[in-house]
Amino acid sequence: MLDWNTKGRDRLARLEAGQRFSAGKLVDPQQLVAFLEAILKPGDRVCLEGDNQKQADLLAKALSKVDVTRIHDLHMVQSGVVLPEHLDIFESGVARRLDFSYSGPQSARIARMMFGGQIELGAVHTYLELFARYFIDLTPQVALIAAVSADKAGNLYTGPNTEDTPTVVEATSFGKGLVVAQVGEIVDRVPRVDIPADQVHFVVDAKRPFYVEPLFTRDPAAITETQILTAMLAIKGLYVPYGVRRLNHGIGFNTAAIELLLPTYGERLGLKGKVCTHWALNPHPTLIPAIEAGWVEQIHCFGSEVGMEDYMRARPDIFFTGPDGSLRSNRAFCQTAGLYACDMFIGSTLQIDLAGNSSTVTGSRVAGFGGAPNMGSDARGRRHPSEAWLRAGREADPTAATPALRRGRKLVVQIGETFGDGMVPMFVERLAALDLADRLQLDLAPVMVYGDDVTHIVTEEGIANLLLCRDRDEREQAIRGVAGYTEVGRARDRKMVEHLRERKVIQRPEDLGIDPLDADRSLLAAHSIKDLMLASGGLYRPPSRFRNW
Amino acid sequence: MLDWNTKGRDRLARLEAGQRFSAGKLVDPQQLVAFLEAILKPGDRVCLEGDNQKQADLLAKALSKVDVTRIHDLHMVQSGVVLPEHLDIFESGVARRLDFSYSGPQSARIARMMFGGQIELGAVHTYLELFARYFIDLTPQVALIAAVSADKAGNLYTGPNTEDTPTVVEATSFGKGLVVAQVGEIVDRVPRVDIPADQVHFVVDAKRPFYVEPLFTRDPAAITETQILTAMLAIKGLYVPYGVRRLNHGIGFNTAAIELLLPTYGERLGLKGKVCTHWALNPHPTLIPAIEAGWVEQIHCFGSEVGMEDYMRARPDIFFTGPDGSLRSNRAFCQTAGLYACDMFIGSTLQIDLAGNSSTVTGSRVAGFGGAPNMGSDARGRRHPSEAWLRAGREADPTAATPALRRGRKLVVQIGETFGDGMVPMFVERLAALDLADRLQLDLAPVMVYGDDVTHIVTEEGIANLLLCRDRDEREQAIRGVAGYTEVGRARDRKMVEHLRERKVIQRPEDLGIDPLDADRSLLAAHSIKDLMLASGGLYRPPSRFRNW
Repeated sequence: MLDWNTKGRDRLARLEAGQRFSAGKLVDPQQLVAFLEAILKPGDRVCLEGDNQKQADLLAKALSKVDVTRIHDLHMVQSGVVLPEHLDIFESGVARRLDFSYSGPQSARIARMMFGGQIELGAVHTYLELFARYFIDLTPQVALIAAVSADKAGNLYTGPNTEDTPTVVEATSFGKGLVVAQVGEIVDRVPRVDIPADQVHFVVDAKRPFYVEPLFTRDPAAITETQILTAMLAIKGLYVPYGVRRLNHGIGFNTAAIELLLPTYGERLGLKGKVCTHWALNPHPTLIPAIEAGWVEQIHCFGSEVGMEDYMRARPDIFFTGPDGSLRSNRAFCQTAGLYACDMFIGSTLQIDLAGNSSTVTGSRVAGFGGAPNMGSDARGRRHPSEAWLRAGREADPTAATPALRRGRKLVVQIGETFGDGMVPMFVERLAALDLADRLQLDLAPVMVYGDDVTHIVTEEGIANLLLCRDRDEREQAIRGVAGYTEVGRARDRKMVEHLRERKVIQRPEDLGIDPLDADRSLLAAHSIKDLMLASGGLYRPPSRFRNW
Repeated sequence: MLDWNTKGRDRLARLEAGQRFSAGKLVDPQQLVAFLEAILKPGDRVCLEGDNQKQADLLAKALSKVDVTRIHDLHMVQSGVVLPEHLDIFESGVARRLDFSYSGPQSARIARMMFGGQIELGAVHTYLELFARYFIDLTPQVALIAAVSADKAGNLYTGPNTEDTPTVVEATSFGKGLVVAQVGEIVDRVPRVDIPADQVHFVVDAKRPFYVEPLFTRDPAAITETQILTAMLAIKGLYVPYGVRRLNHGIGFNTAAIELLLPTYGERLGLKGKVCTHWALNPHPTLIPAIEAGWVEQIHCFGSEVGMEDYMRARPDIFFTGPDGSLRSNRAFCQTAGLYACDMFIGSTLQIDLAGNSSTVTGSRVAGFGGAPNMGSDARGRRHPSEAWLRAGREADPTAATPALRRGRKLVVQIGETFGDGMVPMFVERLAALDLADRLQLDLAPVMVYGDDVTHIVTEEGIANLLLCRDRDEREQAIRGVAGYTEVGRARDRKMVEHLRERKVIQRPEDLGIDPLDADRSLLAAHSIKDLMLASGGLYRPPSRFRNW
């Protein structure tokens, strides 16, 4: 006779063990480490909530203090490896195996620890892929999550940073795992129920908010004229001809520049209402001037952004907000929206090779992927047409025997300067990701966006339209043709590049009627964080690190 | 000064209008039609919940009775067009435009109405794609949904048929739309909270359960020996070499046969624990024998299946179940899991052309897609390796210059008999979907799975491995080579087909050591619905239409 309730009984045992340190669901914060030692077992699959924004930081700190002779070899399955404690637990042996998505601020240390063998790498995922595995083969046995507040029953309010929480909790709780939430306060009644109490097993009152990183704030003051030029190229050379209404912008100053050019340069081109109306996007402060100018119809958000809370509350037509008035974000649904309902993904990268493959791995850093692989890929399951998508499909295959069988293509654009931070060339013959794959004996190099999914590359030298390339050589020369004075750029076949330009595979600023001398900071709708605050009518409250007034 | 709360005020007006027919959130069922006339406006985007299983049937009926002079030209955005009322509203003019996914039982009538111009077609989507658009450009203004019960505050219990509800409600409610739920009963306390009350605006007590279609029940008695042969081929020719552990099965007798062969034929091949351990799957009754024999570790479900409720409750290690003991399904998450966390999708179709494109559109029927385009596509954003996925990638590109840059491939398998129901050939020179596209002047023919995503085709004549085909001609001959005595099959180039067989592009039963004479019904682990019930220890309670005892 098979036993069909091993997981349920295992959870019950953990519940009972945990209740030695709790009154009802409320765990004694003084005994948090002992509590974790009681509910965890060696080898557990654990999701310690954290992504590129919110962090269950109190629980992370406590987990880093558990007795490694009792709790060890955990298998961490979580979006972000961001806090020092996320890696401390691998150093101490509390954790051993890692499946994750993003590690921005820890990219150097995580690389060292991978090389040193302290982290056994499962895989680097795109967010939605890791969420998918929560329901199939990486269901957490314990989830340590973060919320703004809880009521006594355990209903949780996540506030604007809902992010991964509903997904992590659904997989864990219905998968018979244990859900432990740190909250900023216990209240009589939560402002809205983001997570119902019956999915939450324990609550810890941290008596302070969880940590949040303002990752999507770009100071307009730091935007260069070269970045403004790339933004003008993107708007006039891509947004206009494709008529891109539904899109996502990655992080970076180039796309921030696009956002700040919409109400100025974009207005002059008569684009208002014709492009950039519907977004899958975090609440970027640099989008405030475009929103205020009436460009934007609706934005769905992966997460929130520190300082944008009151602004979003005051713009309920634009943002998805709850009965409490604050944003409801949702990373899983927004990634799904980015995949299937957007016509364009445009973002930056650190390295692009001759085939158009890009990666954020450099010699000493493994930054992970976040959402880029998902949104920067052609959604082959997509079945609804749009003008932008159909046009891209026609360009890729102009002579299709049966046009009705020709799919469209997602526009996947890489934008950046030929030389990036510290004058490091963006274009390389060989991705550093390949060295990483060699060194760690990975089957798969950590490529962020594959060349066969990239449709355009934009630099200050021009736009390369890879959809129009008919073979590998053309593709390589199209890439070299916008790679400027990098080694890759200098090794171009000048004749072939000129030929590609005649075919509009490559378009220079002058081909688009853009004078690089016009790429002036005066074009930006805001020149500083303070301008953004003023544009918001004082509703945007920048974090102190961004204030100099 | 721009107005930023038009949607909120619009909802408030609808709320107030609706409250004339309600006590608190509870709508008077006698006044349901008048209530809908009060909360709806011409041109509204409306999601009338319904997919291939559960239906908000009371609300559908009421909507079909509203006064068309008051409520007309609605834009319906919903997974399923399944009930007669779903089309009645287009006939009367209450609705005009349609974005949907699936229309199985209404496939003939919907085709007639499209041809007749009574339905203005937006697009036919795959489920996850339509959900994605709920957050971008198809956010419902009103959602009419279905749940098992509600408490007085409006907390909803969906029971096992959670399905689309959380997704529809999240998009609608936080998008400032109005959510109206029909429930089977009002209770003091819901068994679990599937939808928190603050996302629900009105509740109608239908005093009976919503309608559910047992779409995923296949009677073993109806499985033919030809289907058993295709199942043997799939198991030995695909599941074994690729070592497929994480997968989805479509609907159909061929895959039902696979499920019923696991504990017999699969056991004999020593596959237990090596294949088919983790599933994105509805609770197929035909999987009961494999579950009982200990083959299955975990199943996440899109929806539920009528009669399987008690069985799932008694198998909590296998299914995602809630604190109330019953299944928690979730179509959005399960589709995501099917896309990103499964190595194989195997399903049937009605037509396959010479390029491997398949469609369920026939001359007079438009059945829609459901989940097949999503799960039957290569997830190009996937970044985690598995043996199955890597092997498929190697087969497609054996000579990659840089193996670490070679992605794997999702296994997308079409399985069926060369001649289907009514001896209609599955293989065609030209898809009927193309005629539909012509007739309706669609940019895009409604192709279910595109040939470039299909990796294998299995018929009783053998397996065609399209990954191994190096050009269009090889692909065409590989397809003809398993198309049997259909016209497509008879027009094969015999020499080329033999050559493909030498290269194992085509594998015949004998090439796999399978004697077609062994494809006997005695191999099935259950021969009838009653056997399935017995295998479940009486826990599976088949709907009466499947009972003949």
